[in-house]
Amino acid sequence: MTTPSNKLPARAIIREVGLRDGLQSIATILSTAHKHTWIRAAYAAGQREIEVGSFVPARLLPQLADTAELVAYARTFPDLFVSVLVPNLRGAEDAIAANADLMIVPLSASHAHSLANLRKTPEDVVAEVARIRAARDAAGSRILIEGGVGTAFGCTLQGQVEKREVLRLMQALLDAGADRVSMADTVGYADPAMVRDLFEDALRIAGDRFWCGHFHDTRGLGLANVYAALEVGVTRFDACLAGIGGCPHAPGASGNVATEDLAYMLGSMGIQTGIDVQQLLALRAQAAQWLAGETLHGSLWQAGLPKTFTAAAAVAA
Amino acid sequence: MTTPSNKLPARAIIREVGLRDGLQSIATILSTAHKHTWIRAAYAAGQREIEVGSFVPARLLPQLADTAELVAYARTFPDLFVSVLVPNLRGAEDAIAANADLMIVPLSASHAHSLANLRKTPEDVVAEVARIRAARDAAGSRILIEGGVGTAFGCTLQGQVEKREVLRLMQALLDAGADRVSMADTVGYADPAMVRDLFEDALRIAGDRFWCGHFHDTRGLGLANVYAALEVGVTRFDACLAGIGGCPHAPGASGNVATEDLAYMLGSMGIQTGIDVQQLLALRAQAAQWLAGETLHGSLWQAGLPKTFTAAAAVAA
Repeated sequence: MTTPSNKLPARAIIREVGLRDGLQSIATILSTAHKHTWIRAAYAAGQREIEVGSFVPARLLPQLADTAELVAYARTFPDLFVSVLVPNLRGAEDAIAANADLMIVPLSASHAHSLANLRKTPEDVVAEVARIRAARDAAGSRILIEGGVGTAFGCTLQGQVEKREVLRLMQALLDAGADRVSMADTVGYADPAMVRDLFEDALRIAGDRFWCGHFHDTRGLGLANVYAALEVGVTRFDACLAGIGGCPHAPGASGNVATEDLAYMLGSMGIQTGIDVQQLLALRAQAAQWLAGETLHGSLWQAGLPKTFTAAAAVAA
Repeated sequence: MTTPSNKLPARAIIREVGLRDGLQSIATILSTAHKHTWIRAAYAAGQREIEVGSFVPARLLPQLADTAELVAYARTFPDLFVSVLVPNLRGAEDAIAANADLMIVPLSASHAHSLANLRKTPEDVVAEVARIRAARDAAGSRILIEGGVGTAFGCTLQGQVEKREVLRLMQALLDAGADRVSMADTVGYADPAMVRDLFEDALRIAGDRFWCGHFHDTRGLGLANVYAALEVGVTRFDACLAGIGGCPHAPGASGNVATEDLAYMLGSMGIQTGIDVQQLLALRAQAAQWLAGETLHGSLWQAGLPKTFTAAAAVAA
């Protein structure tokens, strides 16, 4: 048996997506005041990248109707990198006007999921990214455009999604003007071997423009998948406080990787995240009160940090 | 970033330890008839290694009082490898008499945990293994002796457990006559980097005699830890159906890796286990009825297998 060397990155970034991916999939509508508290506490705990919401019509996602206000609030924190999701040019114009740092345009590599979830083909999304890029440049904005390839490991509607197709669409997003690309296991179909295989190729193609891995923990493999991605050099991961989230159009796809569990795993391995896990656990306890009645996830909050956990490596900025 | 090659093993074995590690930590006393059904269904699902119980005084663990009977029952299934736990020479004599295939002698690398859990120092256990080996050989028995090094990644009582001490005790077990050694993250303190680091050294020392990794999922890293162990060439893992289990002397240490989740992860990666995951899920549903009121764990049972999961690789014998 070959024993490959295990060169893990020295640092990694957790992008908090609970305020968007998490809140969009649950019934509770969190007040803007509670979202402010969340952003403030996440920042205090050391988080420096937060996706605060989505520029979609408020009638579709009333939970996220205060996104512009949240961008403005989040922008008041020094060095906080503020992301938003935009489904189309209309949303991108809002994101440009709100002065976010990055806007994520979701594309679903599964044709069936794309039609069900976005009511567009993947090609339509690529064309929209080209229009978004033109609008961004015309506005003289510096907001980054991230093309997010979802259902990258398969789909509950269509089943198999070919790797070749996933990489082709990733390349198409870059060609259309996306500054960054990322990949999402929207429905929790990935395993560590699949992650390694796809991400190695994605990194070869996109290099530093490969931005982020987004894993749902639907079948318990979320953290194993993150570990496999770390091994091939990916250093940015989406996560939701308390593991909330999912996809309304992908049955059974519940729960992003829990931010606090991921921060613990990274910190335990000596990978710097800048995050104080204890503070995150305190924030989780607070969020659990706001979200009373919702199903939360994650493991660390029950057992607490190991006696052996030394935060030193994790919190060193 | 170095990208190591990722040579996963072609096969791996899951040893079911739910009947011992699982049942010893919960209040419900499962009837012998239900245990028979469990063993029969696990065998039918393709499991070929089962730890059926523990030879400890019935007054200490009434849940496991029928261990001798279970060994006799399990021995009636062709090619089923039957393990039992024995805390001492007295238990080993029972295991030899019962004609089990393997007996596991637990040693705790944490001195504090050893005294609390086993009422012995690690050195006492090593000496007991030598006596067990002598008794085994004197009886002309072919039962294998496995020395299981617990709290190998730290301990809730003592905190840090030095790697050097863990490896020293593993070597001492081999020197005392253990045929096999294994390591357990008894309290869920391990992370994938720690697993890789310790198991690489353990394999270098023990070679093929390094038998098994035993991970608790206390903080959600169980499957990530298994993946790290697979990468360095470990191919046998303990797991409990429905993730039951823990350690009565290690507060917060609840839940072994769930057999069905582990079988899914291995099968998804094309690693042959011989296990039919759907049958395991059916058994889990049955066990959930027997164990009504107990806290169960695991993720797969909620979401089900991915549409893309092809059992072919997993069930090929």
